[in-house]
Amino acid sequence: MNIAIAGSGALGCGFGYMLQKNGQNVTLLDYWEDHIEAIRNNGLTVSVNGVKGTLPMTIARPEEVSGEMDVIFVFTKAMGLEKMMTQINHLIGTKTKIVCLLNGLGHLKTLEAFVDRRNIIMGTTVWTAGIIAPGETQLNGNGPVELQNSHPEEEEAARVIVNILKDSGLFGEYSKNVKYTTWRKACINGTMNALCALLDASIDQLFASPSIDSLLNGIVDEFAAVAKAQDDIEIDRDEMIHYLKEVASRLGSHYPSMHQDLFNRRPTEIDYLNGAVVEAAEKYGIEAPHCRRMTDLIHAKEAVLEIKTGR
Amino acid sequence: MNIAIAGSGALGCGFGYMLQKNGQNVTLLDYWEDHIEAIRNNGLTVSVNGVKGTLPMTIARPEEVSGEMDVIFVFTKAMGLEKMMTQINHLIGTKTKIVCLLNGLGHLKTLEAFVDRRNIIMGTTVWTAGIIAPGETQLNGNGPVELQNSHPEEEEAARVIVNILKDSGLFGEYSKNVKYTTWRKACINGTMNALCALLDASIDQLFASPSIDSLLNGIVDEFAAVAKAQDDIEIDRDEMIHYLKEVASRLGSHYPSMHQDLFNRRPTEIDYLNGAVVEAAEKYGIEAPHCRRMTDLIHAKEAVLEIKTGR
Repeated sequence: MNIAIAGSGALGCGFGYMLQKNGQNVTLLDYWEDHIEAIRNNGLTVSVNGVKGTLPMTIARPEEVSGEMDVIFVFTKAMGLEKMMTQINHLIGTKTKIVCLLNGLGHLKTLEAFVDRRNIIMGTTVWTAGIIAPGETQLNGNGPVELQNSHPEEEEAARVIVNILKDSGLFGEYSKNVKYTTWRKACINGTMNALCALLDASIDQLFASPSIDSLLNGIVDEFAAVAKAQDDIEIDRDEMIHYLKEVASRLGSHYPSMHQDLFNRRPTEIDYLNGAVVEAAEKYGIEAPHCRRMTDLIHAKEAVLEIKTGR
Repeated sequence: MNIAIAGSGALGCGFGYMLQKNGQNVTLLDYWEDHIEAIRNNGLTVSVNGVKGTLPMTIARPEEVSGEMDVIFVFTKAMGLEKMMTQINHLIGTKTKIVCLLNGLGHLKTLEAFVDRRNIIMGTTVWTAGIIAPGETQLNGNGPVELQNSHPEEEEAARVIVNILKDSGLFGEYSKNVKYTTWRKACINGTMNALCALLDASIDQLFASPSIDSLLNGIVDEFAAVAKAQDDIEIDRDEMIHYLKEVASRLGSHYPSMHQDLFNRRPTEIDYLNGAVVEAAEKYGIEAPHCRRMTDLIHAKEAVLEIKTGR
């Protein structure tokens, strides 16, 4: 299959590498010049759970590529999705499937402005990845990648991509409720991630705080209320808190990605997490003061750190 | 008059120095050994708006002093008031007036457990002060010190102390509504102070943030609702926001005291500001999620910084 990776950062390179290695015809798309040059000169080097390999790969700016793709994986930051969709528009045909594994909420709506819902496959993944240098990344974990068709008649198409991911060692799984896993992941990012970023704390430091339950409850309650109103998704507060604590105990002294964003002076995805909950809450007449305060505080922290958010 | 300063830190020393210099008989009370030793050996040195002077002063641990005082100024941190009242109990007679200029809410109730309301003079001040070294402090500003009797029949007593403060260059003023100024000051501390501490920001950095209005509104609304329910005090949100911005523009690149507390790894007074609002809100059936989140976040930050709060 002709597969494009729209946004070839850490996770995009990891996926592109595994797909290409296992027989797919992959084109990496990106705008980072040093990265493009390094891959063109030396191939793409990826360490998968510590095992390093190098492959020659095609990498280009979207406008340098032509022809309709079979599948495009979008791997931008949440705030970069809309712009990327305009940049890859010429690669999307009537049968091109767009696979979206982005963090955060509201991406289906963004994608529907560009492609028919029939061609949108939404998903989540718990693979993690990092950039080591231009042309060199790492991919860690053992999946899964959960996918589901956004249109009821497109299950077969989703399952084809699930199988490609399975065959490529990326642990694809067909999900009957990807909306739930998306909300659950957003809930993790909107609590653990946002709080660690704001407090400059590691996960275990955050969870050792005497106010942790109160800090989690307020946010989780609001995510649950909006998930119910908007997507008819049931989030049980106690179950979610239990899950959060279990995830936290596994991650220990790790700093989550939003903390790394602030540390590296990059804008965060807060508008697609707590901020998206605030926006949806308004629509449904729900109060979301905890998510509003978290969103405002993270934006204030971005401003204090003089991070350009483009807002 | 025999005046004791119960808690001779920066502000206590500044007040004690000015009172002693202008004819009062002042006893400084404290437990900080280096400070006591320095003042006993070399006197107390205070820079008042940059003008340095040294006076021999009496300083002692409370238990080393006996006899009833005419006036006792309490100058502890908010969380130290109750303990200090037990430590100075033997210096309080039936006519001893207690003057309380502490930051925060709820101190009248604490004091009433030890002395009759007739003898409690509540107040606020905008003098600022700092410790330079043991035995050496600075006092800055030009007041005022607003005082009001807590019992309607004790105005005369309050006015006597106001005049002493005036005569000592401390700019005493009789207030007809010290509850309002106390709430207003708590509102400043519960917004500007708490937010700068949490975000590790100077006042001008905080107020330059694009989310500043939303950050202030949520907290001010809750302070206003509780001030009304508990003390029948009217706080107008727009007026208060305007006042906050005006104060902020004067203070500029300054870091407020709660920021300094965290920076110096000391517990904050958040429980007597936003935390007191949360507690009172519960009593009156008012929602206070913004104050609750701020309180929880500041406590989480204290925990991350491994500050012992004694809670």
